[in-house]
Amino acid sequence: MSGYSTNMRIKLPLFCLLLEFITIILFAVFVRYDKETDAKEWHDEMRNHSVGNLDNDFYFRYPSFQDVHVMIFIGFGFLMTFLKRYGFSSVAFNFLIAAFALQWSTLIQGFFHGFHNGKIHVGIESMINADFCTGAVLISFGALLGKTSPVQLIIMTLIEVTLFGINEYIILNIVGAKDAGGSMTIHTFGAYFGLVVSRVLYRPDLEKSRQREGSVYHSDLFAMIGTIYLWMFWPSFNSAVTAHGDDQHRTVMNTYYSLAACTLATFAISALVNGEGKLDMVHIQNAALAGGVAVGTSAEMMLTPFGAMIAGTLAGMISTLGYKYLTPVLDSKLKIQDTCGVHNLHGMPGVLGAIIGAIVAFFATMDIYGEGMEDVFPLIQDGSRTAKTQSLYQFLALLVALGFAVIGGIFVGFLLKIPLFGMPSDAECFEDAIYWEVPGEEGHHQLTAVNSEDPDTQA
Amino acid sequence: MSGYSTNMRIKLPLFCLLLEFITIILFAVFVRYDKETDAKEWHDEMRNHSVGNLDNDFYFRYPSFQDVHVMIFIGFGFLMTFLKRYGFSSVAFNFLIAAFALQWSTLIQGFFHGFHNGKIHVGIESMINADFCTGAVLISFGALLGKTSPVQLIIMTLIEVTLFGINEYIILNIVGAKDAGGSMTIHTFGAYFGLVVSRVLYRPDLEKSRQREGSVYHSDLFAMIGTIYLWMFWPSFNSAVTAHGDDQHRTVMNTYYSLAACTLATFAISALVNGEGKLDMVHIQNAALAGGVAVGTSAEMMLTPFGAMIAGTLAGMISTLGYKYLTPVLDSKLKIQDTCGVHNLHGMPGVLGAIIGAIVAFFATMDIYGEGMEDVFPLIQDGSRTAKTQSLYQFLALLVALGFAVIGGIFVGFLLKIPLFGMPSDAECFEDAIYWEVPGEEGHHQLTAVNSEDPDTQA
Amino acid sequence: MSGYSTNMRIKLPLFCLLLEFITIILFAVFVRYDKETDAKEWHDEMRNHSVGNLDNDFYFRYPSFQDVHVMIFIGFGFLMTFLKRYGFSSVAFNFLIAAFALQWSTLIQGFFHGFHNGKIHVGIESMINADFCTGAVLISFGALLGKTSPVQLIIMTLIEVTLFGINEYIILNIVGAKDAGGSMTIHTFGAYFGLVVSRVLYRPDLEKSRQREGSVYHSDLFAMIGTIYLWMFWPSFNSAVTAHGDDQHRTVMNTYYSLAACTLATFAISALVNGEGKLDMVHIQNAALAGGVAVGTSAEMMLTPFGAMIAGTLAGMISTLGYKYLTPVLDSKLKIQDTCGVHNLHGMPGVLGAIIGAIVAFFATMDIYGEGMEDVFPLIQDGSRTAKTQSLYQFLALLVALGFAVIGGIFVGFLLKIPLFGMPSDAECFEDAIYWEVPGEEGHHQLTAVNSEDPDTQA
Repeated sequence: MSGYSTNMRIKLPLFCLLLEFITIILFAVFVRYDKETDAKEWHDEMRNHSVGNLDNDFYFRYPSFQDVHVMIFIGFGFLMTFLKRYGFSSVAFNFLIAAFALQWSTLIQGFFHGFHNGKIHVGIESMINADFCTGAVLISFGALLGKTSPVQLIIMTLIEVTLFGINEYIILNIVGAKDAGGSMTIHTFGAYFGLVVSRVLYRPDLEKSRQREGSVYHSDLFAMIGTIYLWMFWPSFNSAVTAHGDDQHRTVMNTYYSLAACTLATFAISALVNGEGKLDMVHIQNAALAGGVAVGTSAEMMLTPFGAMIAGTLAGMISTLGYKYLTPVLDSKLKIQDTCGVHNLHGMPGVLGAIIGAIVAFFATMDIYGEGMEDVFPLIQDGSRTAKTQSLYQFLALLVALGFAVIGGIFVGFLLKIPLFGMPSDAECFEDAIYWEVPGEEGHHQLTAVNSEDPDTQA
Repeated sequence: MSGYSTNMRIKLPLFCLLLEFITIILFAVFVRYDKETDAKEWHDEMRNHSVGNLDNDFYFRYPSFQDVHVMIFIGFGFLMTFLKRYGFSSVAFNFLIAAFALQWSTLIQGFFHGFHNGKIHVGIESMINADFCTGAVLISFGALLGKTSPVQLIIMTLIEVTLFGINEYIILNIVGAKDAGGSMTIHTFGAYFGLVVSRVLYRPDLEKSRQREGSVYHSDLFAMIGTIYLWMFWPSFNSAVTAHGDDQHRTVMNTYYSLAACTLATFAISALVNGEGKLDMVHIQNAALAGGVAVGTSAEMMLTPFGAMIAGTLAGMISTLGYKYLTPVLDSKLKIQDTCGVHNLHGMPGVLGAIIGAIVAFFATMDIYGEGMEDVFPLIQDGSRTAKTQSLYQFLALLVALGFAVIGGIFVGFLLKIPLFGMPSDAECFEDAIYWEVPGEEGHHQLTAVNSEDPDTQA
Repeated sequence: MSGYSTNMRIKLPLFCLLLEFITIILFAVFVRYDKETDAKEWHDEMRNHSVGNLDNDFYFRYPSFQDVHVMIFIGFGFLMTFLKRYGFSSVAFNFLIAAFALQWSTLIQGFFHGFHNGKIHVGIESMINADFCTGAVLISFGALLGKTSPVQLIIMTLIEVTLFGINEYIILNIVGAKDAGGSMTIHTFGAYFGLVVSRVLYRPDLEKSRQREGSVYHSDLFAMIGTIYLWMFWPSFNSAVTAHGDDQHRTVMNTYYSLAACTLATFAISALVNGEGKLDMVHIQNAALAGGVAVGTSAEMMLTPFGAMIAGTLAGMISTLGYKYLTPVLDSKLKIQDTCGVHNLHGMPGVLGAIIGAIVAFFATMDIYGEGMEDVFPLIQDGSRTAKTQSLYQFLALLVALGFAVIGGIFVGFLLKIPLFGMPSDAECFEDAIYWEVPGEEGHHQLTAVNSEDPDTQA
C-alpha cells in the first residue's frame, strides 16, 4: 500500500472541528438532563416520591463508571504503548477517538435507548454506556494500530459507533439476549469489525515496517500499566450496568475469579509454548485479560465461582495459544494483520463468552434464581421464554454481532481507502514521527550519535 | 541569577521537622474529630437522629476524595515529569509540598470554615478541601518547576496556603460567589500567584539551562499518565464538594462533556498551528485539560450538556493557542518564565471559567432550577439577590482572586530571594542531580560515554 | 549458591495448572455465593427483612476493595520495578503470585472465618480479606526479589497463605486482638517471614549480581507509580474491613494524617543522613509509606489526628534510618539479604504499629468511645476485658505474629531449597533475561554498542 499524504495540517482540524460542531448542534437540539441530573426535576422527584439526595443513582453507579473510564483511557491507551516508536500515537489517538466516541455514542445510543418526547435524557447510565461503546471502537483500533491516520480513525469511529448502537439495540431489545459485560456487543463485535477492516486494508509490504513493530524494555513496562488496570477494573466493567444488588455484587465476584484463574493459565501456557521455557510479555499483557471477556455475558448469571474459574482458565489457554500459533497464520494465510492481537484477546474469548452465556442460561431455574430471576432473565420470569429458548436466543445474538462486524467492517474498510483521509505507506507504519513532533530521546539520539561515529572510529 | 547554595543537608531537615513539629502542636491544641468520625459523637448522633452507619457522609464523599487525591499526587506529579532530567524532583517535590500543604490547609481552612467552640472539626469534607488548596499550590509550582529549591517551595506553600484560605473565605463567604470546582479560588489564584512569583524571580540567563528544558520520548509518556488521570477524574474534582444529589450528578456530567469537546479542539488546533501539520505532546498533555478548568465555576449550574461542550471547545482552543503563541511572548517581553505553561492550562481557562460562571448565573430562574435553586444559588432562593446581582458578585470574586494572586505573589517572590532558602543558579535549572542521588541511566551514561569519546575519536 | 535449572518450560506450567486444578475442585466442593451475592438468597433477604438492593454491602465495601486491589497489583507490582533489569519479573511475578494467593486465601480464610454448614460463603468481604493476605505474601516477595524462581514463589505462596490464615485466626479470634490494617497480621508477619526465608537462602556470592541490583533513571520513576498509589490508597487499606460508620471514616483520616507527616519526616532524614545533603529515591519510594504501616493497628481507635501524625513522623524516621544504616548491617552481619528493604518498610514499622495499638488500647475509656466502644473493643464493651488487659493481649498478638513468621520462614526457606523448584545462581540474580524473552532496549543495546567501540577507540 503506497499510502496517502499523512500531513494532518488541514484535514485533522477540519474533521475534528466539523464533527464537534455537528455534535454540539445535535446535543443542543436533542440532549437534556435526565430526572436525576436536572435541578428542578430531581427536587420534584424527591418531593413526590419521598426519596432523598443520597438515593440519587449517582452514588451507586459513579464509582463503577470511573473504573470503566480508567479502563478506556489508561487501560486501552497504555496497553497499546508496547510499540517502541508508537507510544505517543497509541495513548493519544486512543484519547482522541475515545473523546469523540463517547460524545457520538451518547447521541446514537440515546436515539435507541433514551429517546422520550423527542429528547435524549442523559445521566450516569448513559455515560457508562457511552464508555462501553467507546471500548468496542478501541478494540478495533487495536487491530489497526500503527497503520492508520487519525482522520481514518475518526471516520471509523463515526460509523462504528453508529453500527454499535444498532447492533446493541437488536441484540438487547429485539433478540432479548443478555450481555451485561459485552462479550458479544463489545468484544466480538469490536474485534471482528477491526479484523475485517484490517483485511480490507491489507498491506503486502508491511515487512518494511517490521523492525518497528516490536517493543523495547520500557515500552513493555508502560504497556503493563494498561494491562494491570484493565485486569483490576474488569469486575467493574462487567457489572457497571447490571441490576443493583446481588447482580452487581455477583458479577464483580465472578469476573474476579475468572481473571485470577486466567492469569495462572496464561503464565502456564506462555512458558510451555516457548522453546526455552521463557515467558513472553505479549502473552502476559494480553491473554491474562481474556478471563474478563470470557465471562462478559455470564458473570451476572449464577455462574458459580468455580464455573467462573473454568471459564477464565479456558480463556487464558485459548488466548495464549492464539498469540503463539494463530496470529502468524492469520497474517500469512488470511492476510489479516492484527497489530495488538485483538483476535486472541477479544475475538475468540468474546465468542467463548457468548457460548458460556448461552450454556449458563440453558440451566437457569427458579430454584437457583428465586425472585432474582426477574433481574437476570425477565423473559423467563414472566413466562414468555423457557431457559432453553433463552439459550437459543443467546446464540442468535452472537450471530447478529458477527454479522454486523463483518458487513460493517467491509464497508468501513473500503471507506477508509479514500485518499483524502490520509494513510501511512507500508514503510512508515508504527512510527510516531509522521504525526508528532518527537523530542530527542536518549536511546534514539544515542543510536544516531553512535552510528555516526562508527565511520570516524573505524577510519 | 547566580543562585545560592542548593546543599539541603541542614536546611531541608530543619524546615521539614520544624514545620511538622509546629503542625503537630497546633493539631493537638485545635483539631478534633467531627461528629461523623468521633466514636462517641457518631453513636450519639445515630441514637438521637435515627440514622444508621451507612448514612455516614463517608460513603458519599470518599470515592470523590480518592479521585481528587489521585489527581493531586499522580496527576500533578506525573504531568510534570515531562522534563528529561527533572523527573525525580517533579514527582517527589510535588509529593513533599502536597503532603505539607494538606496538613497546613487543614488548619488554615479550619480556622475559617470549621471553627466551633475554639476547635477545628475534621472529617471527609475537610480532607477534600485540604486537597483542593493543595491543588492551587501545585499549580504555582508548575510555573516555577526546575528553578526553585525544595525549601523555597515549602516556604511558598506555607504562605500560599494561608492566603488561599483567606481568599477562599472572602470569595465564598463574604462575596457569596459560587465556585465549586475552583475556577477562581484554585486555578486563577494558583496560576497568577505562581506567574507573579516567577516574574519576581526572573532569570536573565536561563538560556544556560534550556538544553534540559525539554522532554525525551519516555518522559512524555510518563507525563501522559498525569494528563490522563487529571482528565478522567476532573468530574470528581469539580463535584467533590457540591451539594449531594442532582448537583454532584450534574457537575460530573457537565465536566465530562466539556473535557471531551476540549480534547477534539486541542488536537485540531495543535495540528493547525504546526507548520508541518504535526501534533505536539505539550498541547495534548496540557490543553486537553483546560475543559475541566473552564467549567469549574459553572458545572454545578444548569449549564446544559451542549453549553459544557462549547465551554470545553473554547478552552481547548485558547489554551493550545496560548502554548503556541503566548508563552514565548510572556517569556521574552514580560519576563515571566512559565515552565509548565500554567497560564495556558490554569490562568486563561480559569478566567474563562469565572466568566462562564457569571454568565450562567445571570440566566438562573426558578423555572429552570425549581427547588434545586437552594443548593446552587441560596441567595437567589431566599430573595436576597437577583440572578443579575449574583452574576455581578461572580465577577467581583474573579477580581478578588486576581488581586490576592498578584499581591501574594509579589510578597512571596521577594521572600524567596532570601539566600538561606537556597536556589539553583541559572545554569543548574531543570537538573535532578543537584538535589538527588541520580542512578546510572542508560541514556545519560551513554551520553557521557559518547561525549568523552569524542575527543579521542577526533584526535 | 550455585543455583538450579531456571528453565521453566515444564515446571511452571505443571505447578500453575495443577494448583489451579486443585483450587477449582476445592471451590466446586466448598465455595458458595453468600447471601448478598446469591440471586435467590438476596431476594429472600430483601423480602424478609425489608431491605432494598441499595442496602447490599457491595455499595459500602467495593470502592475500598478496588483501592486495595490497586495497591496489591499496581502498588506492590510497580514499587518493585526499581531494579534496572528486573522490571518484567517484578510486575509480572507480583501479578502471578497475587492471582494465585487470592484464590488460595479465599479457601484458607474461608475455612477459618466463613465456614457454615460445610460451605465457605464468599462476597465482597472475603475478596478484601483475600487481597489482604496477598499483601503479606508480596511483602515477603520483596525480601526475596530477584533471587527466586517463579515456581519457588508459588510454593512459598501456597504455604505462607496457609500460615497467614492460621496466624490471623489466632490473633483475631483466640487472642482477641484488634488489627484492622494488619500491622501485625500482614506487615510484621509478611516482613519477618520473608526475611527468615532470605536468611535460610543466604547467597554468599551475591556480589556477582550487585551491578544489576540498582536502579536506572526511568526504573525509579516506574517505582514511584507504585509508591504513590500505595500512599494514596493506604487509608482505604486500613479501613477496608473496619466496622461501617465512624470507624471507617476515622480510620481513613488517621491514616491520611500519619502518611502526610511521615512524608515530611522521610524527606528530612533522607537529606540529613546523606553526606552531600542529597535526597535518595529509595527512601522516598519506601520510607514515606511507613506511616501507613505504623497506624495499621491503631487507626480505627481514637488515636486523634495529632497522635496519627506523631506515629507517622516516628515511622518515617525509623524507616529512613533503617535503609541507611540497618540494611547493610543485616546483610553483612546477619546474612539477611533484603532486596526491597522490607525490614524498614514493613518490619520495624509493623512492630511499631503493634506497640502503638497496644498503647492506644490501654487508654480506651467509655468516656472517649461511648457506644462506639462496641465496634472497636467489643470485649471491653461487654465487660470481659479492661483496657489494660486488652493492651496486654495486643502485645501478645505481636509475639504470635513474630513466632509464626520465624517458624514458618525457616520451614519454607528449607523447602525452597529443593532443586526441583529451580533457582538462579548467585551470578544470575536480578536479571529478567533468565525468565523472559527480553526485547531489544535502547539503553541496553547502546551500552553494548558503546562498550564494543571502546577498544576500537582506544586502539
